Amino acid sequence: MSSARPRKKTTPSATPADAAAPTNEPVDTGLLRTLVGYNARRASLSIIALFMERMAVYHLKVVDFSVLSLVAHNPGVTSRQLCATLNVLPPNMVGLIAALERRGLIERRPHPSDGRAMGVHLTPAGVELTAQAEQTAAQLEEDATARLTAAERKTLIRLLQKVYD
Amino acid sequence: MSSARPRKKTTPSATPADAAAPTNEPVDTGLLRTLVGYNARRASLSIIALFMERMAVYHLKVVDFSVLSLVAHNPGVTSRQLCATLNVLPPNMVGLIAALERRGLIERRPHPSDGRAMGVHLTPAGVELTAQAEQTAAQLEEDATARLTAAERKTLIRLLQKVYD
Repeated sequence: MSSARPRKKTTPSATPADAAAPTNEPVDTGLLRTLVGYNARRASLSIIALFMERMAVYHLKVVDFSVLSLVAHNPGVTSRQLCATLNVLPPNMVGLIAALERRGLIERRPHPSDGRAMGVHLTPAGVELTAQAEQTAAQLEEDATARLTAAERKTLIRLLQKVYD
Repeated sequence: MSSARPRKKTTPSATPADAAAPTNEPVDTGLLRTLVGYNARRASLSIIALFMERMAVYHLKVVDFSVLSLVAHNPGVTSRQLCATLNVLPPNMVGLIAALERRGLIERRPHPSDGRAMGVHLTPAGVELTAQAEQTAAQLEEDATARLTAAERKTLIRLLQKVYD
């Protein structure tokens, strides 16, 4: 059984030249494709690949976009709320917010009636960039899921939310 | 609008103590929840969290498990085929395979009729660990997707595959 499968002439220490010509021989994915986890990860990674390509112009990673979009829809949201919503650890969120602040996209302002609380807001530049990025995201979503009908897309989202909600 | 939302007393530089008491105030996720990409990522991360918890006993990360499972179902598979199947870059796969080899779970053997090609095989210890890990994976999948009916689970997997295949 171990020698039944024809193999390409390659070594495990593949060079970039090898990488440019990956084998097309199909592999039996066995158990993996029966797992929701594996399939959700593969679908997510395939959409993220397109996301990174199209969002490169804005210099936004997936989580940066999520933070900006949440702040746009929730002006004054706290760092803690962003952590809870996006499942990001507080120390990581501090760095994310600081980087977006340095870029002039968001600003933190004290709560009007509670000096100890800080809320995150978009700057005018942040509002503009987020609006453009949201349009790009909606378009790439459509492109990345072009094989789904509108009804299938709706069903897929509903079932995914049933898993994580 | 920026002060309409009540906020907890916290600062963006959240300490671990803050992290232990995340706010429960709901945030408007706006556009995000309408995106397949966002929902697939959230579902994937929620399953991966359980995966890491249950797989810690085997010292297997998600990608380690995927590699072992693929090798189990494709004895003699090449590094290049593993890269293509799992969307992993060749330099990263080299490290993954070397680490599993050092743990005595897999071994590389030359192709019987082509000395330049190397195939990846499970060792007897690898066969045993992979069988246990696959059982654990199947069980945690069921637990992580317990809110889905069998039919919904099947539909979800089919639609996810339609996105990335």
